[in-house]
Amino acid sequence: MVAAPYQTLETTYPLSDEEIRKTHAYWRACNYLCVGMIYLRDNPLLKEPLKPEHIKYRLLGHWGSSPGLSFIYIHLNRLIKKYDLNMIYIAGPGHGAPGVLGPVYLEGTYSEVYPDKSQDAEGMGKFFKQFSFPGGIGSHCTPETPGSIHEGGELGYSLSHAYGTVFDHPELITAAVVGDGEAETGPLATAWHSNKFINPIRDGAVLPILHLNGYKIANPTILSRIPNEELKNLFRGYGYTPYLVECSQDEDYGSAHRKMAATLEHCINEIRDIQQQARSSGKATRPQWPMIILRSPKGWTGPKEVDGHKVEGFWRAHQVPMSNVIGNPHQMKILEDWMRSYQPEELFDENGTLIPELKELAPTGVRRMSANPFANGGIWRRDLNMPDFRKYAVEVPKPGQSEAENTRPLGNFLRDVMGKNMTNFRMFGPDETASNRLNAVYEVSKKTWMGEFLEEDLDGSELAADGRVMEMLSEHTLQGWLEGYLLTGCHGFFHTYEAFAHVVDSMFNQHAKWLEVCKKEVPWRSPIASLNILLSSTVWRQDHNGFSHQDPGYVDLVTNKSPDVVRVYFPPDANCLLSCANHCLQSKDYVNVIVADKQKHLQFLNMDDAIKHCTKGIGIWEWASNDDCGKDPDIPDVVMACCGDVATKESLAATAILRSEFPELKIRFINVVDLFKLQPDTEHPHGLSDWDFDSLFTTDKPIIFNFHGYPWLIHKLAYRRTNHPNLHVRGYKEKGNINTPLELAIENQVDRFNLVIDVIDRVPKLRSAAAYVRERMRNAIIENVAYAYEHGRDQEEISNWKWPF
Amino acid sequence: MVAAPYQTLETTYPLSDEEIRKTHAYWRACNYLCVGMIYLRDNPLLKEPLKPEHIKYRLLGHWGSSPGLSFIYIHLNRLIKKYDLNMIYIAGPGHGAPGVLGPVYLEGTYSEVYPDKSQDAEGMGKFFKQFSFPGGIGSHCTPETPGSIHEGGELGYSLSHAYGTVFDHPELITAAVVGDGEAETGPLATAWHSNKFINPIRDGAVLPILHLNGYKIANPTILSRIPNEELKNLFRGYGYTPYLVECSQDEDYGSAHRKMAATLEHCINEIRDIQQQARSSGKATRPQWPMIILRSPKGWTGPKEVDGHKVEGFWRAHQVPMSNVIGNPHQMKILEDWMRSYQPEELFDENGTLIPELKELAPTGVRRMSANPFANGGIWRRDLNMPDFRKYAVEVPKPGQSEAENTRPLGNFLRDVMGKNMTNFRMFGPDETASNRLNAVYEVSKKTWMGEFLEEDLDGSELAADGRVMEMLSEHTLQGWLEGYLLTGCHGFFHTYEAFAHVVDSMFNQHAKWLEVCKKEVPWRSPIASLNILLSSTVWRQDHNGFSHQDPGYVDLVTNKSPDVVRVYFPPDANCLLSCANHCLQSKDYVNVIVADKQKHLQFLNMDDAIKHCTKGIGIWEWASNDDCGKDPDIPDVVMACCGDVATKESLAATAILRSEFPELKIRFINVVDLFKLQPDTEHPHGLSDWDFDSLFTTDKPIIFNFHGYPWLIHKLAYRRTNHPNLHVRGYKEKGNINTPLELAIENQVDRFNLVIDVIDRVPKLRSAAAYVRERMRNAIIENVAYAYEHGRDQEEISNWKWPF
Repeated sequence: MVAAPYQTLETTYPLSDEEIRKTHAYWRACNYLCVGMIYLRDNPLLKEPLKPEHIKYRLLGHWGSSPGLSFIYIHLNRLIKKYDLNMIYIAGPGHGAPGVLGPVYLEGTYSEVYPDKSQDAEGMGKFFKQFSFPGGIGSHCTPETPGSIHEGGELGYSLSHAYGTVFDHPELITAAVVGDGEAETGPLATAWHSNKFINPIRDGAVLPILHLNGYKIANPTILSRIPNEELKNLFRGYGYTPYLVECSQDEDYGSAHRKMAATLEHCINEIRDIQQQARSSGKATRPQWPMIILRSPKGWTGPKEVDGHKVEGFWRAHQVPMSNVIGNPHQMKILEDWMRSYQPEELFDENGTLIPELKELAPTGVRRMSANPFANGGIWRRDLNMPDFRKYAVEVPKPGQSEAENTRPLGNFLRDVMGKNMTNFRMFGPDETASNRLNAVYEVSKKTWMGEFLEEDLDGSELAADGRVMEMLSEHTLQGWLEGYLLTGCHGFFHTYEAFAHVVDSMFNQHAKWLEVCKKEVPWRSPIASLNILLSSTVWRQDHNGFSHQDPGYVDLVTNKSPDVVRVYFPPDANCLLSCANHCLQSKDYVNVIVADKQKHLQFLNMDDAIKHCTKGIGIWEWASNDDCGKDPDIPDVVMACCGDVATKESLAATAILRSEFPELKIRFINVVDLFKLQPDTEHPHGLSDWDFDSLFTTDKPIIFNFHGYPWLIHKLAYRRTNHPNLHVRGYKEKGNINTPLELAIENQVDRFNLVIDVIDRVPKLRSAAAYVRERMRNAIIENVAYAYEHGRDQEEISNWKWPF
Repeated sequence: MVAAPYQTLETTYPLSDEEIRKTHAYWRACNYLCVGMIYLRDNPLLKEPLKPEHIKYRLLGHWGSSPGLSFIYIHLNRLIKKYDLNMIYIAGPGHGAPGVLGPVYLEGTYSEVYPDKSQDAEGMGKFFKQFSFPGGIGSHCTPETPGSIHEGGELGYSLSHAYGTVFDHPELITAAVVGDGEAETGPLATAWHSNKFINPIRDGAVLPILHLNGYKIANPTILSRIPNEELKNLFRGYGYTPYLVECSQDEDYGSAHRKMAATLEHCINEIRDIQQQARSSGKATRPQWPMIILRSPKGWTGPKEVDGHKVEGFWRAHQVPMSNVIGNPHQMKILEDWMRSYQPEELFDENGTLIPELKELAPTGVRRMSANPFANGGIWRRDLNMPDFRKYAVEVPKPGQSEAENTRPLGNFLRDVMGKNMTNFRMFGPDETASNRLNAVYEVSKKTWMGEFLEEDLDGSELAADGRVMEMLSEHTLQGWLEGYLLTGCHGFFHTYEAFAHVVDSMFNQHAKWLEVCKKEVPWRSPIASLNILLSSTVWRQDHNGFSHQDPGYVDLVTNKSPDVVRVYFPPDANCLLSCANHCLQSKDYVNVIVADKQKHLQFLNMDDAIKHCTKGIGIWEWASNDDCGKDPDIPDVVMACCGDVATKESLAATAILRSEFPELKIRFINVVDLFKLQPDTEHPHGLSDWDFDSLFTTDKPIIFNFHGYPWLIHKLAYRRTNHPNLHVRGYKEKGNINTPLELAIENQVDRFNLVIDVIDRVPKLRSAAAYVRERMRNAIIENVAYAYEHGRDQEEISNWKWPF
């Protein structure tokens, strides 16, 4: 479809003069509020001339993109009313929150949620003062903002969030405003391709509005300075039908309203036509969804010039156009003239309430974008219909005898979770669902694919227009989708490459912060499903990928965030993984990180024992220990502790060697599933009390702790513990290349032989007697590395090692 | 310019039958080597029938994209010879390293660098065996690969790396092969816009080749399944002239070679025309650079089918087409037939050496892409011509009396660094050069901008076609450019928002690993300039950005990497920042991270003292201490330690309160600039010996350590120290919203009042006497928070606090 010129659209969708007048008045009210928020701490209705004491001491907030955000918002309002649309609004330029907060306040939601910000002069005064003010609210669309699911402080995720909101919500249209600054980021640049994953029958629609106001902080933006034809080609190439709305600062506002109204209405109708056609025919194909490119002046309707510098339509409008209002009467005058240019007395009555003829322009009730339940998705969230995870258990008649791919039973479990929740659960992963052994899910639902199908795809490509497995080689897009999906009330599971989880470190940070604020500060937000992340293809199994694929540090980052919202699990085997996943899938308001490798590993616990172990999160494995297992804390000579699948196997193998070589040595074997058990209970709700910790780890015996990740993370968590001075941690220390499993373990000293040496070196009573064993261990290391170099694999006695007792 | 159809191009640039025959033979040799690398450990020339003992036990490596990579490589070779081009090759699908290693070996470079991999049967055998083999090389274009500056294990950065290589290298053309999997990532999707930052006079050119082989691991790719017109529009929208080369598996290879040769030659000529026109006219405008879209079958020339499944041209060709060759005679037969289909006996002589008529197809000497000095950029690296950093010092007559913006003098310094190095130094930052107070650099060079100029830009947009300040709102692209620039021998400085450095966590990881391998394993690589990163706009000054902009955890990540390559500095004031920056700019092969805020801060050290302090990296500030300053380690009652600008000020203010309130209390004041001083010298080359550490921090006195970042990082570094049990660390603990500086400090207990309380609680002799002071501190906290909430700022006595002694 070729984009129609304005003229045609305006003839089809004319706006009457009366509508223009009212729409413009409403916009003036928004802009008035916007300036008020940035500048005023008192005198909200300008009942008296502005004085220094009315002005905030620190002027903070972003004016530049705000008028455009309001402009779009109120034009959407018109169509919501006209067509009874179910719509939410995502403000990519979240820094322009005043442009969102204004209309949110005017349509009444703000006062309903925060009654002291009432719709009168007093409430307006508080509404102004709180903005970007200590004890108040931030200058982005933070969780405190009704209708927001996207803070937009960090740029890049508005569009992937938007697409995530409409999965499985066929009735929803999400308007996503993308700033031209944000459009330069990588995550945003690829998120445009999300349109290839929208099924017009099953999903709702996103209406992207690229808002070109031309500038970042002090720079033109790339997309605002390329020719229109190039710009349109870009979006045609992304698979959209682009519509350009160009508003200049010299043009009359009526013309701008007419263009925007007609174009928006055309796009909404195009969306409805696409959906209607697909839904009535039952045929889901990939349409060229409409999108809008709105060129409008930065700081639109604001001061044209300040101190001889162009402001409106230039980067100088980005933040606060006049920054010294208190100290400069000239600037004070500009501010007052500016605010009065909106003629507030025509917009608000004596009490400071929006006049009725404007009030009625906004939708009401849950049709208000600020009150739409999708933007408080916890309200929709239903518990998953869960299959009994126990029935996916692998048989473990005796610990440490048999092997299984740890993630494969999880795949079977997830298949049935998906099967029982075919409207509100999806899986997300770059391209590794099969590689991660989770491919059983394809039995109930395949990969969403709206692109071209080829005949050969029938042979295992696992594609379907109604698939529920989301694969795209962009961790950013995947996590953005999932966050949008969770925030609108659904559930999901994200699995990704351990090393490359770092690609989305910053997205994790932002989501964790969002959850933290919601939990602590925003009681009206209902809890949402947790963000569940499985890190697989882990550091210890990178046989050919080598060094660049070895990084277990994502959990280091996770442990920096608030203990209210983060959880980390290292299930040692398949049954423990099932138990952890079952728990995480049912939890709320957390980021749960589970680390488990996909390859074959030794199995340790039958399902009953796995459940007990995972419920405790940490525990002594009595079958591996030969002390009294905790009855007397003084009894062991050494504590062998471990956390992580490979770490556990090596620790056990070391324990076996020690028990053979030194039968008199009393060993306590501890496995950690729930990483935060190591922190004191004063620091994390999962933390062990010092008493419990001391009972497990003793107060003075050597602890040889074999860890999956960077060893110092364990010290970071456990440094306050009584026995910390005797805590000796092994883990990954950036040693690796192309290695066999054992050789990589040896390089980083997490292998059985080095662990035995660690014990010999730390248990005084062994030291002299054990010289011979120590030597044997050194030889075993040399011999095994030589074998690996010669044969390209580990010796069978190593690969097939079993717990011998 | 409209892309010409093949026919026209082929008429203009015909390939003779003889050329086709030879080119195809060379390609067969590449493909033969490729399969050999993946499968064989012996019998490299197939002198005898394949047997199990010739086959590697573990089959690793990516066949799928390899033939295409070789295909492109050898067609580039033809043009390098024909036009004497200076060219390097970046393989985005780095997993297809066999497709690069093959031609690198054939043109002789591999044997020159690694003489045991000689150009005969024995060398070929070793060359095969080492691939993806323990003790050998990885399956990506790792640093061990001659000619590589891009490993490509993690996907997303090939194109930004490529553009970085050609900045200031007008003679260089970098061919960048982008895989269609990688093309889905965000960083890659926005890197296409890098063409807007290439000045055809001053810079070289990038020839991007989007290699659509259709599939990721088990999935079709997005770009391979959209119509050609959509695809071309996308690249027109990105500002390129796209040329499509479509090769199908059913077509004869001659036709494929003809198309590729003609299209490549046309593009090279187009590049040369663009450059020639700009250079002869002296007018640098933004051209529509050519780019190529090559559609070719995945696993091209490989087995068409294995076990009834389509392989060539399908995702099943992604890695190893037959995975059980040793155990399955049928697969063994397929492998042997496949290898023999290349007719190695026609390509290599009896000794296993490439026959002369093929050998001469490759360029020679430094014209070989594998031997081009730009791909070992350390060779080009010249020391920066450095101005004397001392002359940018701020006056500090007495410690703690005056304020300055810490980063502004650095801006002056960088201006002159730039001015003296106008061909090999650039600055990189998203959009914050002025915001970070570094805008003095614009006096010597502005922002590179090849887009449209508007009249108003003259008023402070600071744009120029020959600018050396690189600004784009994509941390990914910036860091990619800078890495490419450093790897080809230049210098640079990257400054970014502290919280959003996490956006490029994963890029840091990869670069640090690259450096580590180069330093430790690849002696023929010359050292390159360090990657210098300034984190500004730090956690403690987020007055209106609030919680989402508060994350000091980037350094946590940095400390996970090898001590050989990472350095972290927290200069407390402007002069220390100058000293650190001066040091970092002259260093090699490190990632240097400097954390310093841009806002006004108290100044502590004059330049001489700053140099001494930064050289030591840690030290007692005698003027703030009232103990004997280390002569007797037992003398202080408490050690006040600090690291970071804001942390230092609050620690000092606490010390001032303590010294007023408790004149008898002996306080030692320690400031840390070089974070790794805290680690033992056994762990990091900058680490203090235990003896030195104990002398500074005592072995038994309380240490109140005020840290800029997450407090547990200090424990992670210092947990082995003798006095660690008495180390009490304050830092950021995820508490924040819209706060005044003091209020944010109070929330996280890094403020002066809480620090005084910490001391009172930890120095036994104060405990009873200090109840009154403790109470006063509590009141001060309450009062200051109340003041902030009321006035929106801190009390002047707090904001303007000076060191009183």
